[in-house]
Amino acid sequence: MRFRSYLEGDEAVLRFTPSPEYTGGVPGHVYGGLLASLLDCHGAAAASGFAHRARGREVGDGGEPLRFVTGTLTVVYRRPTPMGVELTVRGRLDSISGRKVVVALELSAEGEVCVTGEMVAIQIPPEL
Amino acid sequence: MRFRSYLEGDEAVLRFTPSPEYTGGVPGHVYGGLLASLLDCHGAAAASGFAHRARGREVGDGGEPLRFVTGTLTVVYRRPTPMGVELTVRGRLDSISGRKVVVALELSAEGEVCVTGEMVAIQIPPEL
Repeated sequence: MRFRSYLEGDEAVLRFTPSPEYTGGVPGHVYGGLLASLLDCHGAAAASGFAHRARGREVGDGGEPLRFVTGTLTVVYRRPTPMGVELTVRGRLDSISGRKVVVALELSAEGEVCVTGEMVAIQIPPEL
Repeated sequence: MRFRSYLEGDEAVLRFTPSPEYTGGVPGHVYGGLLASLLDCHGAAAASGFAHRARGREVGDGGEPLRFVTGTLTVVYRRPTPMGVELTVRGRLDSISGRKVVVALELSAEGEVCVTGEMVAIQIPPEL
């Protein structure tokens, strides 16, 4: 999977159309593990974006990048996610406290929210 | 990914060695999305196994299978998960209540617990 997350106003946004092999137990619907992966990737990227912004910086500004790993990821599957359409994942900053950034996550397809979640991301030291 | 989950005593167990492309942001460590996917797949399989057992049945006994989807998955990354070794995911039944089965999950590598989690799985009607 290759995709990029972007900051748009107050939100971090990822748009992605899964390829057809990522169906799961229920035909025509996206595999839950892929959805968790999207929230995981996007949540860590969003945490980095929000952390840079909080310091008056931008991702890729040439300074030491602020990198994050997932501490805890919670994924709530609210309705089946359809295959064959673009998915949008939105992240909103909940809190920043020291090395910990909490991001609220929402995945939608065709305007309907299919999955919500929360990531607690932890900043990793630059030498790792 | 292809793997099977098995009931062993009170636990549902999955053993899996990720192929090398499933590394993530941190070199030498398994990608968090793959770990979430393993807990997702195994949690749903474990829920089915426990539900069959609770009715005195076995998975694949020729009766109508009891199938589950993920309601909520929580994944806590406790330490980096090393690449190149077999991972073991264990699920224990927390509760069964109507269509809802709660499974406690634990992923370990080389005897150390790397990831813990919880799945709330929901039984789906047989016609889906």
